[in-house]
Order: sequence, then structure tokens, then C-alpha cells
Amino acid sequence: MQKILLNGTWTESTNTAGSFHAFNPSNKEELTERAFPTSDWQELEALVDAGHAAAEGLADIPAATVADFLETYAAKIEASTDKLAEIANLETGLPLTPRLAGVEIPRTVNQIRQAAAAARAGDWARPTIDTATNIRSMHGALGGPVIVFGPNNFPFAYNGIAGGDFASAIAAGNPVIAKAHPAHPYTTQLLAELAQAAAEEHQLPAGTVQLFYNTPPELGLNLVAHPKVAAIAFTGSRPGGLALKAAADKAGKPIYLEMSSVNPVFIMPGALQERGADIATELHGSCTLGAGQFCTKPGLVVVQKSPQSDELLASLTQNFASSPAGILLTAGGVEAVSKSVTQLAAAGAQILAGGNIADTPHYGYQPTLLSVSGDAFLAKPDKLQSEAFGAVCLVVVANDFEQALAIASLLEGNLTGSIYSDTAGSDDANYPTLAKQLRVKVGRLLNDKVPTGVAVCPAMNHGGPYPSTGHPGFTAVGFPASVVRFSALHSYDNVRHDRLPITLQDKNPTGKLLRLVDNNYTTADAQT
Amino acid sequence: MQKILLNGTWTESTNTAGSFHAFNPSNKEELTERAFPTSDWQELEALVDAGHAAAEGLADIPAATVADFLETYAAKIEASTDKLAEIANLETGLPLTPRLAGVEIPRTVNQIRQAAAAARAGDWARPTIDTATNIRSMHGALGGPVIVFGPNNFPFAYNGIAGGDFASAIAAGNPVIAKAHPAHPYTTQLLAELAQAAAEEHQLPAGTVQLFYNTPPELGLNLVAHPKVAAIAFTGSRPGGLALKAAADKAGKPIYLEMSSVNPVFIMPGALQERGADIATELHGSCTLGAGQFCTKPGLVVVQKSPQSDELLASLTQNFASSPAGILLTAGGVEAVSKSVTQLAAAGAQILAGGNIADTPHYGYQPTLLSVSGDAFLAKPDKLQSEAFGAVCLVVVANDFEQALAIASLLEGNLTGSIYSDTAGSDDANYPTLAKQLRVKVGRLLNDKVPTGVAVCPAMNHGGPYPSTGHPGFTAVGFPASVVRFSALHSYDNVRHDRLPITLQDKNPTGKLLRLVDNNYTTADAQT
Repeated sequence: MQKILLNGTWTESTNTAGSFHAFNPSNKEELTERAFPTSDWQELEALVDAGHAAAEGLADIPAATVADFLETYAAKIEASTDKLAEIANLETGLPLTPRLAGVEIPRTVNQIRQAAAAARAGDWARPTIDTATNIRSMHGALGGPVIVFGPNNFPFAYNGIAGGDFASAIAAGNPVIAKAHPAHPYTTQLLAELAQAAAEEHQLPAGTVQLFYNTPPELGLNLVAHPKVAAIAFTGSRPGGLALKAAADKAGKPIYLEMSSVNPVFIMPGALQERGADIATELHGSCTLGAGQFCTKPGLVVVQKSPQSDELLASLTQNFASSPAGILLTAGGVEAVSKSVTQLAAAGAQILAGGNIADTPHYGYQPTLLSVSGDAFLAKPDKLQSEAFGAVCLVVVANDFEQALAIASLLEGNLTGSIYSDTAGSDDANYPTLAKQLRVKVGRLLNDKVPTGVAVCPAMNHGGPYPSTGHPGFTAVGFPASVVRFSALHSYDNVRHDRLPITLQDKNPTGKLLRLVDNNYTTADAQT
Repeated sequence: MQKILLNGTWTESTNTAGSFHAFNPSNKEELTERAFPTSDWQELEALVDAGHAAAEGLADIPAATVADFLETYAAKIEASTDKLAEIANLETGLPLTPRLAGVEIPRTVNQIRQAAAAARAGDWARPTIDTATNIRSMHGALGGPVIVFGPNNFPFAYNGIAGGDFASAIAAGNPVIAKAHPAHPYTTQLLAELAQAAAEEHQLPAGTVQLFYNTPPELGLNLVAHPKVAAIAFTGSRPGGLALKAAADKAGKPIYLEMSSVNPVFIMPGALQERGADIATELHGSCTLGAGQFCTKPGLVVVQKSPQSDELLASLTQNFASSPAGILLTAGGVEAVSKSVTQLAAAGAQILAGGNIADTPHYGYQPTLLSVSGDAFLAKPDKLQSEAFGAVCLVVVANDFEQALAIASLLEGNLTGSIYSDTAGSDDANYPTLAKQLRVKVGRLLNDKVPTGVAVCPAMNHGGPYPSTGHPGFTAVGFPASVVRFSALHSYDNVRHDRLPITLQDKNPTGKLLRLVDNNYTTADAQT
């Protein structure tokens, strides 16, 4: 049995709740070499206690040391790329190259380095000084561990012990208790080994990074409500996310969720006429990338009926029908996609391509294209905008612009929304109306572009209105914004100068830190 | 029957849910001259529909116009100070001067002007531009109305139609549906008349500011969950706040709550020895200010047993016993304080002064001092840290520093926490340990100062960990930080330049707006 990482030590699990093996989705075989424990409540409490003690310890550690830790960890991941990619490929079926070794691991390393830079610079904390009242404020650590639930589809970039939530929570000065996704436990263990080694090099408190692999759902709900837990991050399915959200909300815990999104794409008539074939190719590529297992996969396309929309459907149908079924991550994923397609069809969507579980050695579902009329969509808007986590896309053929707009107005919150318009200007009159409607439904509004591909840059918003996430004001990707999620606003009123955090003392700690001093942004020292 | 403000028009209420009168707490007489409607569901839905339409209209209004509206409104309040203060005095019993006319109305006017400045400057929105990827982001309006529930204790500064939540929500570009507090409905109506007049002057959409007075609790819960409602702000009691929070959370709505706080004050032994008498005077003044009806009233004092702590208790006892009972806002408030004191006593606290409903023409409860040992507190920490919303204070006498620290570790989240220490340095060794413990329990940490008095400045945090509020990262007071609560993060990916909000176009819209451009804070134009 593999060990959990508890309070700085790889520890034999008490393991009364069971154990599991991962599967190789490329051949559906159980990976019996390593069994992973399912943690019981006693174990979760031990993790929380250690995490809480680590939070107290971290309060005395300079942000620069936390940044050093993150950089060391990033370097270790980079140096272990081959091994990590090999194991992740075995556990997820995602291509070794370019996906894992060439794209996802470098992105992960880059994210952790950006988090380190944010921690070192300190501007994420929004330091503010009012000299007249001697009130000063900044965002600071939460005083307890952050639980990070990683998803199945990114074994590195969203991993509970290495992804954006992990890096953000650590950069804010919090310990992390990561829950591995059971689809890739060994990958996660290897990452945790590197994280722990880096933490030891920089003498961080023992429980700063901890790892468990699995726990029964009811214990997960208890865990997020634990009095000593400070906050939670979750990336995964809507039912799982909503259950955790309810438990965290009731206990008054901040929880950041990324749950589901159909990422609507509106193709305006001019764009369809101008470059329908190119758009079809682009859409198909975006839908089938990674077997459609992206949070930002475009799952809903809205066009207005015309000869060009018929051509688009014909072209997409051909593309989807001729695409091989990619590797899905789990057997459960195949079932979930199958169920979603069945539900879309039951709600009136017509299957134009695919529609069946793939007859392949690997877990797979045929790339599937569906279509439905705008009238039918408006009759069942809820059922026809449910996410299918695979290479599945529903094209809604609206009667006219007004109907497309009505569809936009009935969308739930999504991570992204795209509008394609022509370059000659024939779509320009209607663009503002549609964009205004879509703007408040999505976190990221795109022009002439598919939403897959999430750049890790300060202006990225990988977030959106409920139910795509739990709060429309936060992003899970991009620094420094993602860090502030895992912080509390700390005001200091009349606190003696030598007792203030260095960030809030009169002297600018780095000479470069931007602070709001007496309502002016400045890098100068405060004059008192 | 008074009219509600619906969609820009003072409208006769459909009023099937009843009506009410306010009371004059100074003589307990019903103010029968004006009856106010209790709104039914049909009326609430009409408000929400109008608010939602106003949100669409506001999306096309420049921030400068919103700022102009706020400034006009502030000027109108200022010009109506005498009338407003007179009515508020009648409805709340709060002193005409200095409190209402000299302090609270000027503060309210000042807050609205600060909100206007924030809206005009635009830095609250954290504009961010990445030229390499052409991804840009800023915080923007939510796309629906914000419901603001104002409290009883500040007829102006926290009023649903004039206070900080109102000003913040408007500054972010949202319409507001205000619920008056039934303790001061006519004051609120007068404010809403000024707000509506200002909105008309600047030709804001019809439902930008709306007002209703009351609704049955179950309809309030339905209201916050309404699909067209964007967010909610609430200031009031914990039971009311938690009920609204549960309803909003379930519906996935952001809700900002300020619920309750005992605002612990730790007096270290050196401080007690050095200036115990001064501290006793200061504490008593803070506890009895406004009859103790402040969210930041110090309700829990922790000292270590010593001859000086005995003296402090004796001094406080004398002060409390000799203070007249101030005017409480409502008959319900008297009952609530009475119940709270009874519960504290039942949990083992000894009543040293007061402890009874006041025999006065006005609503009142005797200023009440209680004490309890540290051992007793640790046995029932939950019951002994419940808020009594009046001039009630519980002094916990700990055996030693370790016990005081243990008490700090068991505190719930609070708005504020104070530490008094001596100036000679004898408390310095223990200060960091206590401060670290208290830091993560409170929004504002004070040294040598009582927490009443909330300066409206950028570094203020009028917020704190649950259950003092619903999220530790936000403040209800202070600009620009309070504005961002009522916004969504809006990212624009590859959006054509002329379609971008002016804030995110290459040219800096004011030449003074600070933007994060290619990871550097600058007021320069973006170079693309």
C-alpha cells in the first residue's frame, strides 16, 4: 500500500476505509502494482491538525522563503519531466508528447514560477496605508490549511499538489492538503515527493504540503466543514462541486469551484458566409482536442439558419464522423458522456455523427455532433445546455438573430463565450447586443476564436458566473489575481510600527512594491 | 399608505402582505401618521424585473455618469440634513446632534462621494492588459440588481438606499433594490426620493434605484434566490443573515453579510498596571456609545487576574451602574438584549451592574457589565461569546497568559480585536503570540484602542472571518476595496479593439488610471 504524506512524513495509512488501484485507460487494465489507501476520518483529522499547526508556523516565514520553495519545487518538476510524463501517460492515456512532456508540465512549472514571483513581489496582497488614521491593510494567509481537490483531466496543471490552486494557496502563505484524483494517484504521489523534498530544503513547517488519495464522499463533506480548515478549492463535476459547496457554505468556509461549462460559441451570419469552412475546422479541432476533456471545450454552438449553416453542419458532421475516438480518462467518464448524449437526444437533439461508446481497446466515446432547432432549444434550455465531458458538441440552429439572442439570454453561467463575426462589417450592427447579453454570462468573452487554450497570464479569467464556478469575481488561473482567493483582508489599526508586517511598515520593503498610500499608488516609502 | 419606488415611479403597493407603522423609541409611541406597505411576491418580482432591465441599461452608461449621479445624490442629502436628521431622530431616538446631523449624515455624504471618486477613477476594477496574448480583463457590473438589506442602527451610513453597500454596488455599475429597515421607513423613503431625483437628473435607467419597506421573511428568502438577482448585501442579526446566506448560497448568488461580532479586547497585564483607569473609562465609553448598538462595540474583554484586574472590574462596575440607559431602537431590541444577558448569566457569567430592562419612557436596557472566570469561559466558549446588541460587556478574568491565549484560540470570527499593552515593554514578549492568534480571527486588529469608530478610508476593513461576515476577503467600508464585491471578473480574449470597454483600450482613458500592462503597473498607454 502506498503511503500518504502526513505532517512531513510518508506515513502508512490507517486505511480502514478501503483502497484502490488506478487504471490504464489506454488498455482498460487495472494498474495493480500499487494500491492506494482510501483515507478514513481519523486520517483526515490528522491531516487537518498538522495543516493547522503548519499554518501557525508559516505565519512566521517570510514570503521570500515561500517563493524560494515554489521555485525549488518547479525546478524539481522540470528535472523530473520524463519520469512524470511517463507515469501520467500510463495513468491518463494523455499523449506523452507534446501534451504531457511538451505542454502540460512546462505550463505547470511556469505557473508555479509565476506564483513564486507573485509571492515575492507581494502586490497580490494589495497593501494599503492611510497615514492620517494610521490604519493599514493587506491580504494575508487564512490561518488554516486549504484543501485542494484536483480534477481528472490535468494530471499536472490542475493537480491538487502542483496546479494553479495549489500554487495560489501556497503563495498566499497557506498550507495545502491535496486530494489526489484517483485516476492518477501515482503521478500525484511523485509530485508530492518533489514538493515535500523542496519544503524540507527550505525548512518549511512539517505539514505545509500534505497528500491523501481518496476518501468516501461523506467524509469529504465533513472535511470541508472541519473547523480548522480555512478554505477549499475544487475542480471537477457539477454534482461533486455542488455537494462540496453546500457543505462548505453551511460551515461558512470560502470555497472556489470550477464545475462545468458548455462554453457557447455564437457564429454570426457574416462570419459563416465569409469563412464557414475554416470555422468548422477550428471548432472540430477544439471539440476533439484531448478527447474533449477540457473545461473550456465548446459544447454549444449557435448559428442562424441559412444555406451556410447547413454547410457548416455538413462539414462538421463529416469531421466528427471521420475522427477517431480519443482516449477518455476513466470508465466512469465513458458512462458519463454516454448518459449526457442520451439526455441531449431525449431532449430533442438529433445525433448527426457518433453517439455511441467507441469499440476500442481504450476507454472511448465516438466524437459526437448533435443539432437542434432554436425553437426546440428554447423549449428545454436547461436540458440542452448540460455539459458532456468529451468530444461532444451541440449545434443550435436559430431562426434568426432575435432567437439567437433569446438563447444567449437563457444561458447559465459559463467559463467562456465566443462570438465569430465577419471582417467586412456586416455583423457589426448586431454584435453589441449579443456581446452585452453574453458578457454577463461568461468569465472570458472571445472574438473569432475557440476557447480551448487557457493562457496563464495576468488578464486571464478562468472563472465565470455560477454554476460554472461558485463566485463570479475570481479566477483560478493567472497571477497575481488567483492568489487573493486564499486570503483574508487584514486591517491594522493603530498597531505599533515595529509590530506591523514588513509589507505595511513605512519603508517600502523592496523599493518596488506598489502600495496604495494615502489614496495614491506609489512605490515610495510612506511618510509619517 | 406610503408608496414604494418601482421602476422610477412612486407606486401604490399591491400590498396584500400587510402594512406597518414605525415607532418612536423615545416614547414608545406608534408613528401612525404614515403606514408603510409590506410587499408581496408580485411586487418583489416587479422590482426585480425592473432592476434587471436597469442593469442592461446601465451597461451602456459611462462610469462618469454614475459618478455624477452619486455626487448629485450626496449633495442633495447634504442639503437636506436638517429634515433628514429630524425624521431619523423621530424614528430611531438617536441624538439629533452630534450623532445624526453632525456625524452620521456627513459620513454618509462623504462615503457616497468616495464611491463617486472610485467609479470615476476606475482603479477599483483592476484593469489588466496582456499585449502578447491580447487578453485583457477588468471587473465589471454583474448584470442584474443588487438587493441591499440595511440594518436598524445606522439610518444613513448603512441605509439600504444610501449607505456603503448601496454606494459600492452603484459604483460598480449595478442597480440597487433597497429594503428599508422597518425601524426607520420614512427616513429611508426621504433618502430614496433624493436618490430618484438625482437619478432622473442624470437620466439613469428607470429602475436603477428602487425601494421597498418590508416583506415576510419567507419572501425575502425567495427574493435573494431569484434568477434575475445578481447579488445581495445584508447588515443585521446573525439569525437573519444566516437564513439569507443559506438561501443565496443554494441559488449560487454572491452575498455579503455583516452579522455579529463581540469585538474582543485583550488587556495585557502591563497595560492594566500602567493605565488601567484610563482603559476602564475608554472601554465604558465605547460600550455605551449609541446605547451599545454598534457592530464594533467591544462585548468581550479578556484580562489576567491580578489586583489591577480587580480594580478594572470595580471601576467598570461603577461606570456601568451609574450610566443612564440609552435609547434602544426597537422594542424587539430590548427583548433581544434581555434574552442575551439572561443567556450569558445562565452560562455562568455574573452580573456586576445592570441586568434589567430599563424603567424609562424610551426603549432601554440598563448598561450591563458581567464577568466570568477564564475556566468558566473555556467550559462554554460558544454561549459566552454571543453578541448582545446593546451596552453589555462581559469581562473574562483569565488565570494567566496561557489561558488568555487559549481563549483567543477559541474565538469565532470577529470584525475587530484589540490588544492593549504597556508602553514600557513588559507586555512585548507575549504580544506576538497573542497577536498571531488574534490576527486570523478578526478583520481589524487594533493596538491600544477601542474598536468603535470606523474610519472610511482605503485601509479600513469592516469585515472579518465567518460568522462576523460571510467571507474573510471583503470589506463593507472603504474605497476602492468595497466596490469590487459587487462585480464579476470580465476577461476579453482577442476582442476587437473598438469593441473593448474604454478602460481596456490601448489608450489610457484618463491618463491617470493605473493598469497592470504586461505585468507592470503603469498609467501609460498600452503599446500594441
